[in-house]
Amino acid sequence: MAKGSSISGFPEWLPSERVVEQRVIDTLRHIFELNGFIGIETRAVEQGSSLLKKGETSKEIYLLSRLQDVGNEQDTPVEDRLGLHFDLTVPLSRYVVEHSGQLAFPFKRWQIQKVWRGERPQEGRFREFVQADIDVVGNGDLPEHYEVDLPLVMVSALEELRSFGLPKATVHANNRKLSEGFYRGLGLTDIEGVLREIDKLDKIGADEVKKLLISECGANDDQADACLELADLTAANGTDLTERFNALCELHHVDENPEAYALAKQGLDTLANIIDQAARIRPGSVVADLKIARGLDYYTGSVYETFLDGAQSLGSICSGGRYDNLASQGSKKYPGVGLSIGLSRLVSYMLHTAHAEATRVSPAVVMVAVWNENDRAISDDIARRLRERGIPTDVAPTAAKLGKQIKYADKLGIPYVWFPADAMEVQAAPDGTPADQATHNEVKNIVTGDQQPADPDTWEPDVAIAAQSVTVQA
Amino acid sequence: MAKGSSISGFPEWLPSERVVEQRVIDTLRHIFELNGFIGIETRAVEQGSSLLKKGETSKEIYLLSRLQDVGNEQDTPVEDRLGLHFDLTVPLSRYVVEHSGQLAFPFKRWQIQKVWRGERPQEGRFREFVQADIDVVGNGDLPEHYEVDLPLVMVSALEELRSFGLPKATVHANNRKLSEGFYRGLGLTDIEGVLREIDKLDKIGADEVKKLLISECGANDDQADACLELADLTAANGTDLTERFNALCELHHVDENPEAYALAKQGLDTLANIIDQAARIRPGSVVADLKIARGLDYYTGSVYETFLDGAQSLGSICSGGRYDNLASQGSKKYPGVGLSIGLSRLVSYMLHTAHAEATRVSPAVVMVAVWNENDRAISDDIARRLRERGIPTDVAPTAAKLGKQIKYADKLGIPYVWFPADAMEVQAAPDGTPADQATHNEVKNIVTGDQQPADPDTWEPDVAIAAQSVTVQA
Repeated sequence: MAKGSSISGFPEWLPSERVVEQRVIDTLRHIFELNGFIGIETRAVEQGSSLLKKGETSKEIYLLSRLQDVGNEQDTPVEDRLGLHFDLTVPLSRYVVEHSGQLAFPFKRWQIQKVWRGERPQEGRFREFVQADIDVVGNGDLPEHYEVDLPLVMVSALEELRSFGLPKATVHANNRKLSEGFYRGLGLTDIEGVLREIDKLDKIGADEVKKLLISECGANDDQADACLELADLTAANGTDLTERFNALCELHHVDENPEAYALAKQGLDTLANIIDQAARIRPGSVVADLKIARGLDYYTGSVYETFLDGAQSLGSICSGGRYDNLASQGSKKYPGVGLSIGLSRLVSYMLHTAHAEATRVSPAVVMVAVWNENDRAISDDIARRLRERGIPTDVAPTAAKLGKQIKYADKLGIPYVWFPADAMEVQAAPDGTPADQATHNEVKNIVTGDQQPADPDTWEPDVAIAAQSVTVQA
Repeated sequence: MAKGSSISGFPEWLPSERVVEQRVIDTLRHIFELNGFIGIETRAVEQGSSLLKKGETSKEIYLLSRLQDVGNEQDTPVEDRLGLHFDLTVPLSRYVVEHSGQLAFPFKRWQIQKVWRGERPQEGRFREFVQADIDVVGNGDLPEHYEVDLPLVMVSALEELRSFGLPKATVHANNRKLSEGFYRGLGLTDIEGVLREIDKLDKIGADEVKKLLISECGANDDQADACLELADLTAANGTDLTERFNALCELHHVDENPEAYALAKQGLDTLANIIDQAARIRPGSVVADLKIARGLDYYTGSVYETFLDGAQSLGSICSGGRYDNLASQGSKKYPGVGLSIGLSRLVSYMLHTAHAEATRVSPAVVMVAVWNENDRAISDDIARRLRERGIPTDVAPTAAKLGKQIKYADKLGIPYVWFPADAMEVQAAPDGTPADQATHNEVKNIVTGDQQPADPDTWEPDVAIAAQSVTVQA
């Protein structure tokens, strides 16, 4: 993040850092579109009523007021005010319902946009950041295979980001039905409460979570232990998962409650299918991890969190799940499944931990020097001809001493400086046409010092340095 | 704009419309980077104090409050609250001052972002829209040639947008110093007032403006007439401009006030240079039009507005100018010049007036059919191989009847449907490997009906329909 950012929680990148973010966004978009996802952008604001009813972040909303209404804000109930969206899932649900007649279902969409959370400033968390989401929303129903497909698309996208310094990513999957069935089979009833406490495992540890399960969720000692044993269960294939889960159910007599076990079994089968399919397509990319709870209350099936090897402190960098009841219109439901990358934190990691760097600040690969201001038209003409062939080109800001011009190019990381044909000779040309470039123009690679004659209509930069790109310092 | 958008003033595009907006954004970014502009993104919020002090739109600010602070908003003065930016120029000025030590000057930047204006909802104007800006900001000084360069970059960008149905664009330029010098030479002192009234010419006509100049700005009948005569002056080259302007100065004795005339002359010379340079590089792209006033008070030199042939009702679609005093730090100034495209209105015009259309909704060029859910892995494998070669591919949502699968592809505009090798034969393969695609896979162009054998490792879509693009209905 740029040093001295003047409002806490609102990160802003320096130009060279923005190159990294922009390339990350371009890469994600490319992968999402390669997989047939359709890009949309929703407005930044939603009705307060819509923002208030959903998700854990409902307390962290920024509401808007027009300057003219300052002092009279209380006249409007919060539900009727406008607020900034805190994620891209609530807006998607609203968008799908609003435009359902004009969409083809299942609707596969990608969306990369800023979101805002009115967190307490002192917490040092981002209050404005970019999310990159993919979701598939069905009309009435949604085939289960999307619960396999979507985490795999995200894994392939995160795989592409390894060239920006990102470690290997692993999706940890669980299923709400599995958890709920198991908890009910134990005799617990405050399912949301248990999920909320289990979600704290990584932060506060098993002992504290056990205390909370007992004090907050009405669990006895045995029930709390069983919840923790379930949370401890991981598996890389469906057979292992099923065996271990069934053993646990037997041990705690969960299978003696047929209704609860049937619910758990439904979640188990979906989860087993997901990790088996994923193992076939991309081994090691998705594991079952039954402590994954997800704070949001709208998930109804699969839930996912994604961790980077060796970057546990980042927490989950890509999360999501299946939500069957988020969007509805009358009796019609629009079940969905999706995952969301917290992009700003990821870019921050790339920049500050992985030391990803733009190869140059400027998109220009060449800067045309200017011998004197009266001859600027000559340099402009060369630049125009280079640009017409798709070569990003800058022109020196002033006809300063050549050293100063080269310094400007160097500061922007522009690798080539173009020296126009000598102005005297151009002016001496009998028909007044611009420079005889073939013999007199020269271009210098200011990194290697190599200088060669060049023609603005044919010269090409070295392929290896032509594109502005991102490298990672070893 | 999508029908039934539920919050007035917050436009939202349907997926096919978003394709057009996205392509417009991509095109502008390409042209800006081709010209060496550096992309940045600033945070969406600024301090109230910063938003309040600048520009005409200072009364149309959205202020933020955290949900927790609702009811106590008055405890914080507006200056100390956060608000959404209403343009990209004020944020740029703040960004440049804040990060000046880490930028290379002159700093050429492009920025395409949403802005928000807390307008009255009933006015039917956009309250959230996208702006596309380029600016060059100097450290201490800024060479005049940028006042020529920037409108020409915008003209070349707008020229690229003609393939999206945009008519030819012409930049109308004026200069604040010219206007101020002329008005002062007439004996007028309320320069901002006169500019404000002149800015209304297109809306209310000369008679009304004359009345206002007299009633609001202390002009007498002759002075008001002279202001209107100046506003009537246009020219396509520097010689014409200079002759006509000097004739007007003589007629109204402006040249008898040496100080005022010197100021006007300074503006005149810059403007003459701009239109002559522009005429040389891109004839007809920039004209002098002395009624261009621009509402914003921070302009100090060149001002620009841009009109589309035959779309006068749109008003100016790209405006800007030179501002010498917007950004400063102590005694250090950061003069800038820039132009801003009101992108959302432009996209609205393309969609609804020029009838620009996406060639398809989905980025996928091919959809792989699924014979039955048990064989989905075969279709997924074909899709993976196509994607590995950069071909955007979707897979049928369900193993429905083939007609239904084709209908889904058709609804998304996906031109090809891939028929995997017959599942029976695959299952009969002795070593259990996937389909013998070379002989059995087929791909059908569902527009032409043409169906051919195809290999997922070599097949290429027809070049003419491979890319999702935008066409304009004649």
